Amino acid sequence: MAEEVRATNITWHHSDITRADREQQNGHKSLVLWFTGLSASGKSTLAQAVQTVLFERGCRAYVLDGDNIRHGLNKDLGFSPADREENIRRIGEVAKLFADAGIIAMTAFISPYRADRDKARAISGDSFVEVYVQCDLAVCEDRDPKGLYKKARAGAIPEFTGISAPYEAPENPELVINTGNKSLEESVGEVIAYLEKKGVFLQA
Amino acid sequence: MAEEVRATNITWHHSDITRADREQQNGHKSLVLWFTGLSASGKSTLAQAVQTVLFERGCRAYVLDGDNIRHGLNKDLGFSPADREENIRRIGEVAKLFADAGIIAMTAFISPYRADRDKARAISGDSFVEVYVQCDLAVCEDRDPKGLYKKARAGAIPEFTGISAPYEAPENPELVINTGNKSLEESVGEVIAYLEKKGVFLQA
Repeated sequence: MAEEVRATNITWHHSDITRADREQQNGHKSLVLWFTGLSASGKSTLAQAVQTVLFERGCRAYVLDGDNIRHGLNKDLGFSPADREENIRRIGEVAKLFADAGIIAMTAFISPYRADRDKARAISGDSFVEVYVQCDLAVCEDRDPKGLYKKARAGAIPEFTGISAPYEAPENPELVINTGNKSLEESVGEVIAYLEKKGVFLQA
Repeated sequence: MAEEVRATNITWHHSDITRADREQQNGHKSLVLWFTGLSASGKSTLAQAVQTVLFERGCRAYVLDGDNIRHGLNKDLGFSPADREENIRRIGEVAKLFADAGIIAMTAFISPYRADRDKARAISGDSFVEVYVQCDLAVCEDRDPKGLYKKARAGAIPEFTGISAPYEAPENPELVINTGNKSLEESVGEVIAYLEKKGVFLQA
């Protein structure tokens, strides 16, 4: 043990590990895939499925979504305009940290406002990839896996995106995936093909 | 490409990637190494050096410190008691996310209050390892790399830990590293030896 530590001494004393070092170690570039779309459009399902395919290719990827953010980091935030903005800001900052750590960070939040998404883009710069998960409201409302649209229609959820609050569709997203007219497999394939084309996977 | 996506279809449709899957892929367990100690005690230097040794062993590690947190995620926070508490809470939550992503997360913040560190511990549970970076105030003040102690003594920085604000030393830290009486190499060796003993490195 002691020998090993001493042996590596020369390197680590002089330089910290960079993002490029991590990308080299992982065999792929890191970036932020920002999935945006209506509730039930399939953001989380798609991000999780992409994550699994990436994992099986030996990549490092991680999904930030309501499950791990709303009950943890952002549990102090409600749904006021200021809180929604802060919610997205923090997610943008954490996604940036994950990308800096060499990971393909994926975020799956409705993130309905263009201004908030643009701020998240500004945080991560060139590493930011906006993925518009497009799906007709009627299809989302028909899926309604958590019964949220039903509640929103009944007036039980105020300011519900698509019903009583706006969804501002991306104007120039890097990627548009219409989950209403294709299988999950096809959707995943489109994301992976985009990453291939962008040169995310480094040659061994 | 399409074939590859289709081929992996069977697995990813049924299960999401777990922390255990990531640990297996990385060849080591993930955890949170929470470095705490006075300003200039050597927290960041030690964490960065440990990170480099881990990287060279093929591990995934990432340091959260003032550089990547105070100007990003927590740039909205000042130094009031409430803001200091929220600062540590968010760092604890982000460290937990990194550990969940299979990474050895290291945090390097003074984090002077026991109650705040205990909350960070509660967030990560068994994955939390408190590393007390012990160093006499006189030694820290003598090092004073950023001239902060000098300013604090002159009254230019209010509530400076160790001078005009308390540092509550850990009562039962998992690890104590006294940086005042040993080299950086030796300090790193003690952290790595602890990880070895804890079984963090999985057998190939």
